[in-house]
Parts: sequence; C-alpha cells; structure tokens
Amino acid sequence: MFIAMNRFQVHPERSDEFERSWRERDSYLAEVPGFVEFALLKGDNPGEYISHSRWESRDAFKAWTQSDAFTRAHASGLSEDVLADHPRVSMYESVLEARASVAR
Amino acid sequence: MFIAMNRFQVHPERSDEFERSWRERDSYLAEVPGFVEFALLKGDNPGEYISHSRWESRDAFKAWTQSDAFTRAHASGLSEDVLADHPRVSMYESVLEARASVAR
Repeated sequence: MFIAMNRFQVHPERSDEFERSWRERDSYLAEVPGFVEFALLKGDNPGEYISHSRWESRDAFKAWTQSDAFTRAHASGLSEDVLADHPRVSMYESVLEARASVAR
Repeated sequence: MFIAMNRFQVHPERSDEFERSWRERDSYLAEVPGFVEFALLKGDNPGEYISHSRWESRDAFKAWTQSDAFTRAHASGLSEDVLADHPRVSMYESVLEARASVAR
C-alpha cells in the first residue's frame, strides 16, 4: 500500500470555504489506474487538513501526477489565500498492516 | 471515518529494530470493537514512521485507549532510545471520501 498526504493549514475562519472547494471539485480520480481511495481529513487543530490518497503502488501515484487528469483536477479554483502556509506533501509505504477480524 | 496517527522520528540507523518491534508485537487490535484497520507507514524521509489506524468513530478509538487491550499492547518493549523525538499523536475525521469505481 502506498499513501500520499498533502497537509494544509487553512485560516480557520475560512475552513468552510476550503471544504466547499473540495466538495465541488471534480477530482477525476475514480477511473485512474491504481487509485484505491481518497479522503479529505480534518484535524483536531483549527484549520488543519490532509488530503489523503491511497494507491496500489508508488508508480500508480506518480503516473497520475504526470497525467492530464491530474492537471484538470488541479486547474479548478481554490483561492490560494485561504491557506496560512504552503501545502506539504509526504509519501509513505506501509511496512505492516492489520485489519479487523470481522468484516464490516 | 476516524483516523488516529502517531508520528515517530526514529534514529535512521535503528529503523530495522523499530520495524521489528512492531512486527513482533501483539497489538490485540483485530477484535477491538470499532477497529477497522491499522498500518505502520514508512515515510520517504529517513527514520520517519506513522502508526496509522482507522476506526468506525472517535468514540471507538477513545474506548480502546481506555481498555485493557491498549495497556497490554503498549506494555511490550520498544526501547525508547530508538526514537529521536517524542511521538506526536494527531486525530482526524474525514469530511469527504471517494473510492475507485472498480473493486480491486
């Protein structure tokens, strides 16, 4: 499993606007080869968000970042001034996994 | 969806030892009510790790941290000096989710 996280620090009073821009955006992700799932996570600290995506492999993620779908998804307009800082991207490979015994 | 992350900065030369301590540890998580999945994530930066767990709700996570299973899982011995810094816990709720169209 490969996970990419992009951490955002948003001006807290503009959190609603930030969330709305994600809801209204067409990410074109669902059909991308190797894409597994996406979540926009909201942290306990005001204005803290992570865009959290899971991929079958790092190569699948890299291929997406070089695709037209990526360009289209990032063309739609988040106004930059809702951010209090630059987004910070981090990438992770899982070295150990466990799941609940009972399917839910 | 609720996600708890604990970020670890490990002395890079002790990464193998850190990973082994997780592999050998019995987390007792699989049977915990509300637990969904766990992964130990390794970051691209040397010595960067996240213990990443997903729960049905924040309440399920909280109940686990107050349980005997939690105490047992944390009693097993990770030698503290593999860490270059204190672990940092963060908690997140998802505000938006998407999955691949094709089941994999």
